Amino acid sequence: MEAILETKYALDTFYFLVSGALVMWMAAGFAMLEAGLVRSKNTAEILTKNISLFAIACIMYMLVGYNIMYPGDAAVNSWWPGISFLLGGDNVAADVLAQNPDEWYDGSYYSSMSDFFFQVVFVATAMSIVSGAVAERMKLWSFLLFAVVMTGFIYPMQGYWKWGGGFLDGLGFSDFAGSGVVHLCGATAALAGVLLLGARKGKYGPNGEIHPIPGANMPLATLGTFILWLGWFGFNGGSELVLSNIDEANAVALVFVNTNMAAAGGVVAAMLTARLMFGKTDLTMALNGALAGLVAITAEPLAGTPLLSTGIGAIGGVLVVFSILMLDKLKIDDPVGAISVHGVVGMWGLIAVAISNPEASLKAQLIGLVTIFVWTFVASFITWLVVKAIMGIRVTEEEEFEGVDLVEIGLEAYPEFTGTKGSGL
Amino acid sequence: MEAILETKYALDTFYFLVSGALVMWMAAGFAMLEAGLVRSKNTAEILTKNISLFAIACIMYMLVGYNIMYPGDAAVNSWWPGISFLLGGDNVAADVLAQNPDEWYDGSYYSSMSDFFFQVVFVATAMSIVSGAVAERMKLWSFLLFAVVMTGFIYPMQGYWKWGGGFLDGLGFSDFAGSGVVHLCGATAALAGVLLLGARKGKYGPNGEIHPIPGANMPLATLGTFILWLGWFGFNGGSELVLSNIDEANAVALVFVNTNMAAAGGVVAAMLTARLMFGKTDLTMALNGALAGLVAITAEPLAGTPLLSTGIGAIGGVLVVFSILMLDKLKIDDPVGAISVHGVVGMWGLIAVAISNPEASLKAQLIGLVTIFVWTFVASFITWLVVKAIMGIRVTEEEEFEGVDLVEIGLEAYPEFTGTKGSGL
Amino acid sequence: MEAILETKYALDTFYFLVSGALVMWMAAGFAMLEAGLVRSKNTAEILTKNISLFAIACIMYMLVGYNIMYPGDAAVNSWWPGISFLLGGDNVAADVLAQNPDEWYDGSYYSSMSDFFFQVVFVATAMSIVSGAVAERMKLWSFLLFAVVMTGFIYPMQGYWKWGGGFLDGLGFSDFAGSGVVHLCGATAALAGVLLLGARKGKYGPNGEIHPIPGANMPLATLGTFILWLGWFGFNGGSELVLSNIDEANAVALVFVNTNMAAAGGVVAAMLTARLMFGKTDLTMALNGALAGLVAITAEPLAGTPLLSTGIGAIGGVLVVFSILMLDKLKIDDPVGAISVHGVVGMWGLIAVAISNPEASLKAQLIGLVTIFVWTFVASFITWLVVKAIMGIRVTEEEEFEGVDLVEIGLEAYPEFTGTKGSGL
Repeated sequence: MEAILETKYALDTFYFLVSGALVMWMAAGFAMLEAGLVRSKNTAEILTKNISLFAIACIMYMLVGYNIMYPGDAAVNSWWPGISFLLGGDNVAADVLAQNPDEWYDGSYYSSMSDFFFQVVFVATAMSIVSGAVAERMKLWSFLLFAVVMTGFIYPMQGYWKWGGGFLDGLGFSDFAGSGVVHLCGATAALAGVLLLGARKGKYGPNGEIHPIPGANMPLATLGTFILWLGWFGFNGGSELVLSNIDEANAVALVFVNTNMAAAGGVVAAMLTARLMFGKTDLTMALNGALAGLVAITAEPLAGTPLLSTGIGAIGGVLVVFSILMLDKLKIDDPVGAISVHGVVGMWGLIAVAISNPEASLKAQLIGLVTIFVWTFVASFITWLVVKAIMGIRVTEEEEFEGVDLVEIGLEAYPEFTGTKGSGL
Repeated sequence: MEAILETKYALDTFYFLVSGALVMWMAAGFAMLEAGLVRSKNTAEILTKNISLFAIACIMYMLVGYNIMYPGDAAVNSWWPGISFLLGGDNVAADVLAQNPDEWYDGSYYSSMSDFFFQVVFVATAMSIVSGAVAERMKLWSFLLFAVVMTGFIYPMQGYWKWGGGFLDGLGFSDFAGSGVVHLCGATAALAGVLLLGARKGKYGPNGEIHPIPGANMPLATLGTFILWLGWFGFNGGSELVLSNIDEANAVALVFVNTNMAAAGGVVAAMLTARLMFGKTDLTMALNGALAGLVAITAEPLAGTPLLSTGIGAIGGVLVVFSILMLDKLKIDDPVGAISVHGVVGMWGLIAVAISNPEASLKAQLIGLVTIFVWTFVASFITWLVVKAIMGIRVTEEEEFEGVDLVEIGLEAYPEFTGTKGSGL
Repeated sequence: MEAILETKYALDTFYFLVSGALVMWMAAGFAMLEAGLVRSKNTAEILTKNISLFAIACIMYMLVGYNIMYPGDAAVNSWWPGISFLLGGDNVAADVLAQNPDEWYDGSYYSSMSDFFFQVVFVATAMSIVSGAVAERMKLWSFLLFAVVMTGFIYPMQGYWKWGGGFLDGLGFSDFAGSGVVHLCGATAALAGVLLLGARKGKYGPNGEIHPIPGANMPLATLGTFILWLGWFGFNGGSELVLSNIDEANAVALVFVNTNMAAAGGVVAAMLTARLMFGKTDLTMALNGALAGLVAITAEPLAGTPLLSTGIGAIGGVLVVFSILMLDKLKIDDPVGAISVHGVVGMWGLIAVAISNPEASLKAQLIGLVTIFVWTFVASFITWLVVKAIMGIRVTEEEEFEGVDLVEIGLEAYPEFTGTKGSGL
């Protein structure tokens, strides 16, 4: 029997690691999506933001975030790790089997290190959402300072309330893989930053005109969307946490299918909506539709059928188009649509749980939604204010005109392609 | 014993899901490959096609295609799912173990949902093949309408004949992962469309000259090829369907190695062929060589040795160069070489089974080849004709000159890079 | 009991195959990284190099390299394969269980084919390191000829000394996943080539000035870095070789975490260093920092804690910045920084083992380091000399000015984006 438990332990750990690697890959997806949707003069800076926020998220979550979110029992002999196991202690989970195999729930544990790996890439995802919304006008190091606070404190705190066993979990709030805990949280932090930061120069005219500012590289944006779609199989699929028996394997497989169908529903719905409203089949709306479908299903990819999931994703796809138009009317300038995709549709995802999962209550979902929004908004707003006071958050008008690449990064993303600025080499 | 069977079930399901995720990733590969090989003015449209065809394929296959291809036994208590399990029923396979463990073949089942996930990404692959061949001149929504019919009916029907247990399977036709069922099928549907559509303006001169129309972005095309190469490990590797005992694990490993070696053989052979014929080591031929090697080995990646597989891939790599030249002589305009890579080499793959697998018969292979070709060509041609009658299939000459991006999508793929059209922002 | 062993065998094989697929994906990472860091006129050629070197590596390693590196016992009835199993024999490992289950160490074997698959992608990684350093001035086919020798002989020989059970292994030299065997080896071969080849025209002025030659496409370089980061989970994670019991699963999970943290440490350290030294947060330094962190931890990702691993990666990140500056002072022209990232930091990785792993000895590490460097440098230098004598290694000055794409490949990577050369279509 022990040999089987060992094999299950290994399989569940491997499943966690593969899922985590897929979620880590989403960092590349956000980088490509955002790099494709900004102008070439701001591309190197957003790439720098994306790789550095991932690094900062990993370090801060190791140092403090994980311990805030999953305080557990920090004693060495406990199976659930305190921070010591990250900073110097051992990966102690293994000892439990020898001591007391009966304690294993369903005989399925997994390495605590694999849990940390899976969780840490989630933090980075939440932070990635912010970088796109504040693109093209924020100072790089102000952003990085905010990333330190967001990934070390703001995200882990509300994560604890739900996934760490805090009060939202006690209330029956349901958020399978993080429509709220990850996506709404990230989008809310972005909203707070955008409100303080203001719109890009030239985006909104004095008479209420809205000037579209096209992204420089649509293949990159599309690649980013496909990467995120792929990574989401790890994001949602891994959030079942266990795989190694028949019921769990079936659950994980259903999560994969529902995740995929919701994205498909989002694409088709957003394309049709764009076509009906604009007369053109806007590619960026199709991409946002895919992401909206994925965000929408993230709170509950297990309870519904594939058909219902397609519908939940499709509603997300319609919502995202209207939300993007609405935010522009409100002069909330979000270059990549992150607030709409992850925030507005994240809220829809939380509410949709009450439709697809008979055990969920709308009330608990709304309490969770409001809690995450209010906490993240207030904490982020204060943090942005402090950062602003310390070092400012917006580049000068001249730097914005020149592009943040030259002033912040000291190089151009495409030195040979944009005629007037080519290096001539 | 049950605990072991449960673990095997979970492992096989996970293997299926990982394989399916790799095949889903091929959708990104086709998108990048095709976006790299068309001109910049048609890039946003081909990206739109690629993400929307994937979404349509998933929805149509869920609604009707899967049930056509694997009609099985639709009753709820049967282990093989009817359509009900996708639209609303349960993932019922799990019950079998409790009822009758002896019924399990080798003790290895897997989640029916994971089977659907694996199959659905195959449909999308077949459809992706079409989009490249008809690029730069087809109306977007005509293409999408065709995609509905192709993924819901044309592909599943011939898929049923082989993999669903239909008459081709009964005849001994052998097609491990779909050189015929997927690649030849997709290429044949593309051929029917290209014949109706005609060549791009300016491709063929009045005196038989052939004007090369270079793709806009070679790094994207190369990235797409690497993505497809990676995804093919899921495509072929997952098609063994079971992993959880020693013989099956060995088989899957051999499939990985043979798949990889065939691609390597294809690259080297195509490069040498191009170098000898043109005096230059044409990158696009190296890329097509890799894909040709992969297509060639797909029908039988298990029976041969790695050395033989290298040879089968190499022949594919030589074939693809000559086929591309030949199609141009016939004025069949295929911007990305999809008909050559997936059709001509797909046929070679089917025939090569008779060489590498002593249990296969050349006769059965040829019957399968002809059946797939004739069915797909006739059904596709009629469908394209109907689509043409309803809404037309080709953009106007002026729209083709301007590029389909502006007329269909309403935005440019690279607004800042192509001087005359830059948005000036 | 046999059923459990079979399941473990399948799980370990699958873990190997997934890891190998991730490492294969690194080939795409190197291709994108290098394509992003060279000028547009040399991009198609470096893409061609990257896909063809991968193909050549696979073929040469199948034909001779694997057998040199792991000579084992070539008899058919032995569980460890000789070359026969690749060229025509069977995948015989499976028979052992039936004959003598007690022989299995910890009950965990895996398919010998999966071992070959994992090993073959490592060879390609080593070779990929070379292509970047000699970019923009080397003849394509001279490079490919060198690749034949490197992947068939030079790499396998020193690989045998450590991983094949040769004298370095006997001395206690420790190199978990190849900071030395793979990265230092690749970088040393590159250094030998660069010294013979000389710097690019215009890189170093007559009065000691260093002219930066910016890469054409920063999003590609960033994408390449993310791909490599992801692939490294397979590179290091798979090098534990076994997963299927609790201790091994814990080990693999710790390797994942340490690998990730070292990369994160490298990014942050390199960014801070660049910012302090240049006043700008140079993106290319952040990317090199990530890779440096990964290279640094590769020799020992298991013995240290995540915190220590972050530090080891961070030191790598600082080192790489200084090394790049230093090589430029020495007029060693390495367009992508490969010698610094993989060579200098690879040495640091080998030395760091003596810090993180109490069982390692600094002396053995230094002996290994020197052995790999001397062997690879001498063997490579001679090979480069022979290649130079046969066909030359450097393009003409005029070809270098025009770009190697037109002369070697016969097409441009971005025909529409670089004004003066646009095809006009």
